[in-house]
Amino acid sequence: MNVLYVYAHQEPKSFNSSMKDTALEAFEERGDSVKVSDLYAMNFDPVLDENDFKNRKYTDIFNPFLEQLHANKTDGFAPDIKAEMDKINWADMLIFQFPIYFTGFPAIMKGWIDRVFSPGFAFNPLTQSAYETGLLKGKKSMLVTTAGADKDWYSKGGMHGDIHELLKSITHCTLEFTGLEVLPTHVVYGASNLSEDDAKKELERYRELILSL
Amino acid sequence: MNVLYVYAHQEPKSFNSSMKDTALEAFEERGDSVKVSDLYAMNFDPVLDENDFKNRKYTDIFNPFLEQLHANKTDGFAPDIKAEMDKINWADMLIFQFPIYFTGFPAIMKGWIDRVFSPGFAFNPLTQSAYETGLLKGKKSMLVTTAGADKDWYSKGGMHGDIHELLKSITHCTLEFTGLEVLPTHVVYGASNLSEDDAKKELERYRELILSL
Repeated sequence: MNVLYVYAHQEPKSFNSSMKDTALEAFEERGDSVKVSDLYAMNFDPVLDENDFKNRKYTDIFNPFLEQLHANKTDGFAPDIKAEMDKINWADMLIFQFPIYFTGFPAIMKGWIDRVFSPGFAFNPLTQSAYETGLLKGKKSMLVTTAGADKDWYSKGGMHGDIHELLKSITHCTLEFTGLEVLPTHVVYGASNLSEDDAKKELERYRELILSL
Repeated sequence: MNVLYVYAHQEPKSFNSSMKDTALEAFEERGDSVKVSDLYAMNFDPVLDENDFKNRKYTDIFNPFLEQLHANKTDGFAPDIKAEMDKINWADMLIFQFPIYFTGFPAIMKGWIDRVFSPGFAFNPLTQSAYETGLLKGKKSMLVTTAGADKDWYSKGGMHGDIHELLKSITHCTLEFTGLEVLPTHVVYGASNLSEDDAKKELERYRELILSL
């Protein structure tokens, strides 16, 4: 299958980077094709603004929603957005790997969603295209995340609460919203304090997950 | 009281802008002092990276968490972050006003959190400073948001689900996490299709809320 691997970590020597490399090797072993959007390395701009559009429908007032709809009809997106859309169209599966920041995406990845998952491309309220009829239906997706805190913080009754409930804003209201099938989220807890041995075990656990997809 | 008003909308002629202006007038009527962080107008950079730091603790590997802790000990943040921290220190209340993007913050506001609410400033895992002992304890906060979709989408059993549950990643795991008291979230539903009359009513409803704080 074709995999788009959207990745957000600043440091090539990080544990997150090792996880990404582990996944890429496992996908190669499977014979899958992978394109990587390495957001920090690409210097991806996460801010949805007027620069997203090559031509504007309304120049007197900026309405992001209406401009996104218009750009989808007129091939009017800036090249950096168009490039990500092309990768999504090519992909059978989207993987989002990120260290969790305040129980959600780092801003650079949130902005990738804000700018790329636009109305007319990923969903469309005007044609009732969302969830069961979302425009990305037929593709799969998965979140892969590292949390600095331990699992008890992220469990029901813990300080933060159940991580899977907290991520519903992404898994349900973002990914399923566009019609994507969502595989169970893969979480590495206590990632800021992993021993070398535990890090190895986590990489192996992730490798096996990718091989089992 | 002193209010920091963190605001994220691109367009000065938008309904969101009218809401902000309504709030600022109401705060003036109350005799409160307000500082506004108008994130798009400031061209605020939401990406947490090496440029956040004037000096680095570790130059061989970039670990955002350790660098943020170090910067808080050494006055080592870039000026744009320092300026926001100064406003928070001055404020008794923080208000975040934004159009909801995929049931969460727009990236520009998420990045404000990622970069400004750093360990050592807003919380500190090393000293067990979070929630009841969060470093911003004593201050209040409130989310103010507009949703394009109608209320039934954002209710229990609706397509997205209960908006207050979806926002817990912000209200609980971000704001309460730092010790902030969180007032009930103010939501304007169906904001993309408000009639002129309904828009007026919503502005009046918001004005009354600010006056009642």
